[in-house]
Amino acid sequence: MATQGGINVAIVGVGLVGSSVISQLTTIPSLASQLHIVCLQNSKKTLLSTASSPLSLTGSSDWKSQLANSSTSALPLPDLVKSLQRITQDSKRHTVVVDNTSNESVASLYPEFLKAGLSVVTPNKKGLSGSLDLYKAILANSSPDAGLKGPLVYGESTVGAGLPIISTLKDLIQTGDKVKKIEGVLSGTLSYIFNEWSTPAGGSKKFSEIVKIAKDNGYTEPHPADDLSGSDVSRKLTILSRLVPSLTGKLPKGFESVPTHSLTPAPLESVTSGDEYVQKLPDFDGDFDALNKAARDEGCVLRYVGVIDVEKGEIKASLERYPSDHPFATSLSGSDNIIAFHTERYSARPLLVQGAGAGAEVTAMGVVSDLIKVAERRG
Amino acid sequence: MATQGGINVAIVGVGLVGSSVISQLTTIPSLASQLHIVCLQNSKKTLLSTASSPLSLTGSSDWKSQLANSSTSALPLPDLVKSLQRITQDSKRHTVVVDNTSNESVASLYPEFLKAGLSVVTPNKKGLSGSLDLYKAILANSSPDAGLKGPLVYGESTVGAGLPIISTLKDLIQTGDKVKKIEGVLSGTLSYIFNEWSTPAGGSKKFSEIVKIAKDNGYTEPHPADDLSGSDVSRKLTILSRLVPSLTGKLPKGFESVPTHSLTPAPLESVTSGDEYVQKLPDFDGDFDALNKAARDEGCVLRYVGVIDVEKGEIKASLERYPSDHPFATSLSGSDNIIAFHTERYSARPLLVQGAGAGAEVTAMGVVSDLIKVAERRG
Repeated sequence: MATQGGINVAIVGVGLVGSSVISQLTTIPSLASQLHIVCLQNSKKTLLSTASSPLSLTGSSDWKSQLANSSTSALPLPDLVKSLQRITQDSKRHTVVVDNTSNESVASLYPEFLKAGLSVVTPNKKGLSGSLDLYKAILANSSPDAGLKGPLVYGESTVGAGLPIISTLKDLIQTGDKVKKIEGVLSGTLSYIFNEWSTPAGGSKKFSEIVKIAKDNGYTEPHPADDLSGSDVSRKLTILSRLVPSLTGKLPKGFESVPTHSLTPAPLESVTSGDEYVQKLPDFDGDFDALNKAARDEGCVLRYVGVIDVEKGEIKASLERYPSDHPFATSLSGSDNIIAFHTERYSARPLLVQGAGAGAEVTAMGVVSDLIKVAERRG
Repeated sequence: MATQGGINVAIVGVGLVGSSVISQLTTIPSLASQLHIVCLQNSKKTLLSTASSPLSLTGSSDWKSQLANSSTSALPLPDLVKSLQRITQDSKRHTVVVDNTSNESVASLYPEFLKAGLSVVTPNKKGLSGSLDLYKAILANSSPDAGLKGPLVYGESTVGAGLPIISTLKDLIQTGDKVKKIEGVLSGTLSYIFNEWSTPAGGSKKFSEIVKIAKDNGYTEPHPADDLSGSDVSRKLTILSRLVPSLTGKLPKGFESVPTHSLTPAPLESVTSGDEYVQKLPDFDGDFDALNKAARDEGCVLRYVGVIDVEKGEIKASLERYPSDHPFATSLSGSDNIIAFHTERYSARPLLVQGAGAGAEVTAMGVVSDLIKVAERRG
């Protein structure tokens, strides 16, 4: 069946998201016949398909042991590219690299993958939210427009995981709508913290208590400052804003160019241990309480949001007040993301998308949806 | 430029939506170079591209006069198919028919278009929500799966206009999520009427008054019973439910098989004049008031919704109560649509999409997004 159409899929990074991707690709018959896994690679090992012995991956225990038992140590990426080019030629099928890592080093090589004719599908934010030079190199070597035949880049899961956010923004722009403002709660962790803490009635728990609960439940990174810094939000803003024609060239250093409000109190900025951070955070609950009360006194709640104001040319990750009847106040709960597209067509009321914006299964869904798009266009 | 890739677009129906489609295709340079309009047809005239004189459509007044002045009377559809097959051969480009009519007669010919190799893009609900026999014939003659090369069918705008509803449902299903329940306010007209009438505080206007305002403002069909019958909702439910594998074969007569609550009081069912209908509706305000009060006494509001309960195998268009803190109560306003996908992955809270679900510009956006997908796959 090896030459009956479809595309090859090379999976780099087989952690939680990668495992879910493999699971979806191997257990859904209509996908298994179109999306042929030809490579698995983690930091230690590489498992490669060859003409004489194509990969045959079934259950989850199976591929894990095959990869662990592979005699090939993890290939340096330039070597991996060469192997994938050979597989492309032998199989006469287009090949896509799925970057399930969160590594900058993998992301920095997307232009090389593309130059070698390999498409890229990625939930890794590092590439698309990095420097403008890298972003331009990615654009220059891919062929997004219909009618062109080169390699493609898709990263739906970089923002909101499986939620249709990037595809919707692309549809709006490609069909000529004018985006005026994009505004959203884009971090699941910060959504949870503020939904619990800043309510119209006033929550019963202190800011630091909720951060501790979030950390204890694994909702935050090991060091909560990595969430409270807002950089996850500014990375997502970078990725979205670059899809808006008038903003594509605006952030030379990528997410580092986005004005980003850090929630970490200045005296804690140098604390490198997550545990120590959580231990010291209560010292600052008074400051947080004051912010919350000031919002409540105006009939508002606080939300940590990303804002792209296209008309003003302003992009920022910040703490904002919303009236208690605003959708960001009323309809959010748990760790849901919500995004509002205010456009010329959706002017009276925005186009809204809401739902779980993190988690392995929904992130993998975004990745696999992207892979289906590549297969539809290059299979 | 005629043979530089892209696809041919034949537009049948040039009313409000058709005009917006033409406007988007002719004014956005990246689209104009990929989506080549080769035919316009209304009920009177046909304007066809030929090898020696390709259509050249610019401003809106231009194509309207070209069509009006065409020497070709509107072609019977079988003749149109033959002409489009000839254009396909001459141009060496794939051709897609856009059905912007709301005619059953055009929709019933989709299988013939497809058999002739022509793709179909449509905002017309009649085909996809018609009999199961027609639906099966449409499926049997199109090639949705990646890797196949035949004609395609897309109808994003049949539900929620430009909102990403059908594409999201397809992504969920194709990547192996299990849909448990789909629930939504799917009629812009009924959304407006209930948002105004059934509020937690109790509205100040009678049901009949709001229907009259809606009619006077053109938010309803000329005869409001066409909206209040719920058939627009049951058509949309038919289209969505058929995408769910376990429900595809469930509605033999299409939307007519969906249990649908009509809001028209029984004594008014035979009233054929919209004006007379609106004049007599106040006689029944007492009944409507009682329904509203009963809901309010339980802390609820009334919404006219479509429900697809996959687990129960139940599909219905009905009047339901929602607690006043439910998103259908709190975050809806104007004539917005909202849809909630409850799935295995989005189980704690549903995936929500909300926004304007009607209007020529947003409907055309859904059509043009679909055309871009066809161009990406067949251009």
